[in-house]
This record gives sequence, structure tokens and C-alpha cells, in this order.
Amino acid sequence: MSFDKPIYEGKAKRIFESVSEPSQLRHEFKNSLTALNGLKKGDFEGKGKLNRDIASLLFQHLGRQGIRSHWIRNEGEISMITHRLSMLPVEVVVRNKVAGSLSKRTGLPEGTKLLRPIVEFYYKRDDLGDPFINDDHVEVLNLCTTSELKQIRNQGLEVNKHLSSVFSKAGLDLIDFKLEFGRLESAGEVLLADEISPDTCRLWDTKTEEKLDKDRFRRDMGGVDQAYQEVYKRLQGALS
Amino acid sequence: MSFDKPIYEGKAKRIFESVSEPSQLRHEFKNSLTALNGLKKGDFEGKGKLNRDIASLLFQHLGRQGIRSHWIRNEGEISMITHRLSMLPVEVVVRNKVAGSLSKRTGLPEGTKLLRPIVEFYYKRDDLGDPFINDDHVEVLNLCTTSELKQIRNQGLEVNKHLSSVFSKAGLDLIDFKLEFGRLESAGEVLLADEISPDTCRLWDTKTEEKLDKDRFRRDMGGVDQAYQEVYKRLQGALS
Repeated sequence: MSFDKPIYEGKAKRIFESVSEPSQLRHEFKNSLTALNGLKKGDFEGKGKLNRDIASLLFQHLGRQGIRSHWIRNEGEISMITHRLSMLPVEVVVRNKVAGSLSKRTGLPEGTKLLRPIVEFYYKRDDLGDPFINDDHVEVLNLCTTSELKQIRNQGLEVNKHLSSVFSKAGLDLIDFKLEFGRLESAGEVLLADEISPDTCRLWDTKTEEKLDKDRFRRDMGGVDQAYQEVYKRLQGALS
Repeated sequence: MSFDKPIYEGKAKRIFESVSEPSQLRHEFKNSLTALNGLKKGDFEGKGKLNRDIASLLFQHLGRQGIRSHWIRNEGEISMITHRLSMLPVEVVVRNKVAGSLSKRTGLPEGTKLLRPIVEFYYKRDDLGDPFINDDHVEVLNLCTTSELKQIRNQGLEVNKHLSSVFSKAGLDLIDFKLEFGRLESAGEVLLADEISPDTCRLWDTKTEEKLDKDRFRRDMGGVDQAYQEVYKRLQGALS
């Protein structure tokens, strides 16, 4: 059961399969950071391990709340073994406060609290810059079925409740985050996949509003590695 | 009942009110054409009259199909008298084939037939460039009520059926179009407003696929005035 056959290399992960266990994959978390659709690149020592550890803590916590994910177990320092899914080419973004592109789109200042969470879909297409799309586009482009669309929206909102609560205990305000989902072919089920980490969440210190996420890298604010370590430390405390 | 008090000047219309008839407005259609959020400007003699005539033919036709609009009657050469509405800051775009921004957003080539019509909402905000938004944005920004959102989507699809049929009789393929709606305060009702014309519709000749709409201006193709005249002439034939 050695997952040593590389099948895909993304911006932040390498994925391997095993001949003896075709229904599983190994995700190896890299130390690299990218932004602006890959145009901006960086890295720091230990980033892969931190994101692997944060994501696996969160997947396990969500699992205890009844939300299944692709996570099966961690392996070594920087890998996790997961169910092998057929990924939906849709990113699901859930937002609690205004930040980033939502501020540009609506003219609302960053930090504005939304009356209720907003869900957005993005078409996973690097060549198009992962464009923002609506439900009609998802269906007409046949990116998933109508039933799956409903499932991933509802799961996004459900995950938001649990994560907001955990991060709040950790003194962190969950501003927004991105999820990806995949089909477990054997079960006809849609499972939460990819990762949940400071790469995919905006996390602000509840009191100081200090940013503790990839925006520090995107906006050249420095202290990226300390921020990721701080999130991991606080999360361990909140979940222990 | 002279509508001589100017209250608003837009890119393609001037709007006037009358002291004696406060529940109505006069829309005067200008000869100007704009694109790229007003950055590109042009005009041609007789354009205001053509768009007034085309829009009023279409509003009357839709009225006969049970779809009410703000149109009451034409006045003079270039004006129409309408109900005075409180406009919703949302543009409703309905698409039958891929063109313009949908091609950029999805990577599908212009002219691709969609499996079913797509509805898109845009936030009417010149300072933001009228951004594309989704249902959640409409509701959280409080641009209209949930019930109004449903109404304008359904009316968009209903209008699409009737217009596609009329334009088809005129040898024109209705690729996509933009609608605006407003509240009739007295009735708590949402009415179709603004205009329907080659400024707001993409119309391609059914056989040759020649563009007979504002894309001729946007893309510097020439023959803009002949195209608008041709649409009017064919529409008169189809509706007579």
C-alpha cells in the first residue's frame, strides 16, 4: 500500500496513487504559496506540514459533527490518505463578512458583516482565471447535477456553522472560505474534499482584526509563517 | 400635462416629469450610443426615434401577451409616456446562445446554443462597472425582495419566449437581452421598464448570422444605423 505513483501536481499539493489501493490517494502538501492564479509565488519551511495538520484537525472535527470528507488518515509529516473522488469543477465560497473580491464587486468595505452568509460558485478553470458563475451556469455547463448543486450549497452553509464556532473558540473570526467537493463513485455521494487551511480561509483575530491567513502573502504583509503557526496552535487549543 | 421638467439624463435617454401628472414620466430617446460603461461614445441621426419605435412595438406586443410594462403611449417622434416606477438596481440578462461576457466567462465559443436559457443578474452601479452578481448578493444587498427576485427571473424567461418568437418571425435570432424592472408603488407590483431595442438585445440574422445590434458599434463593424433600421422594418412586418 505505498502511494508512490504521482498522478497530479497542483499549486500547493502533489497527489499519488497506490497500485494496491486504487480507491484511495495520498495528498502531499507542498511548502509553496501562490496567488493571482499562480502569477505570484512564494513558500516557507514547514508550510506543508502546518496546512496538512490544520486541514486534518478540521476534517476530523467536521466528521464528528456528521459531515463526511475525503480524509481517511494522516501519513508521515506532510501527507494525508483520502478517498479517491471524481472532483466537481466548482469552487464553493461561503462568506460571513465582506473581504477581497466581494468588496470590489459590491462596493461594501472590507469587514462589513453580512446579514446572512453568502454562497458563491466559481468555475475551476485555470485558463479562464476561475471565473465567478451562478447556478444557471453550473447547470448549463453541466458541472454537477441540480441535486449535487443543492448538496454542495447546503454542505457549505453547514460547514460554515461548525467552522465559525470552532474558529470563534480559537479567537478567530471566519470571514470567508473556499471548499471543493468530489463524487465518491461507489456511493453516488458528494464528499467534502481538497483542504481547509489558512490558504483557503480568511481568518481575522477576533479582537485585533489582524489577518492570519494567505492575505498576508497576497498583500505582502509579512509574517506569513507565524500567522499559519498561530492558527494551528489556537486550533489545537480550541479542539482539545 | 406637459412633461417638461427634466429629472434625469442617462446615457441614451432623458426623463421628464409633469406637474399635473405625477404618476407618469416622459422618456425621450437620444441619438447617442455608448459602450464600455460610457467610455466609448457615438451617435447617429434617427437612432432615438428607431429605438423608441422598436421598444414601443415590443412593449405593446408583450402587453397583448399579458406582460405589463411601464409603457402607456408614444408622444411625438422620440418620446414615450410611462408609469412612474421606483427602479430596482438590478439588470436581468437572459441568454439563449453564448455571446459577449458569457463567452469570456465560460470559454464557450460565441454562438453556442445553450441547453436552456440562462438568467444573470447585474448590480446597476456605474461606479463599479455594473458587476455580475448572484441571487445571494441581490438579497443581502437588499436590491429587491425575495419575491421580487423570483418575479423578475420568471418575467425574464416569459419575455424571452415571446420575444424569441417575434424575432424569429422577423428572421432574427434573439441571442441575449437585458431587462430592467421597477416597482409601481401604488400597486406593490413589479413592472417591466426601461427599453427593449438593438441597444439592449443581441440580434443575429437567422440565416447569415450577421449582427444587427449594438455589437456593430461596440466592435467598430460599421453599418450601425442600417442595422437598427433593418430590425425596425422586419419587426413591423412580423407584427403586422
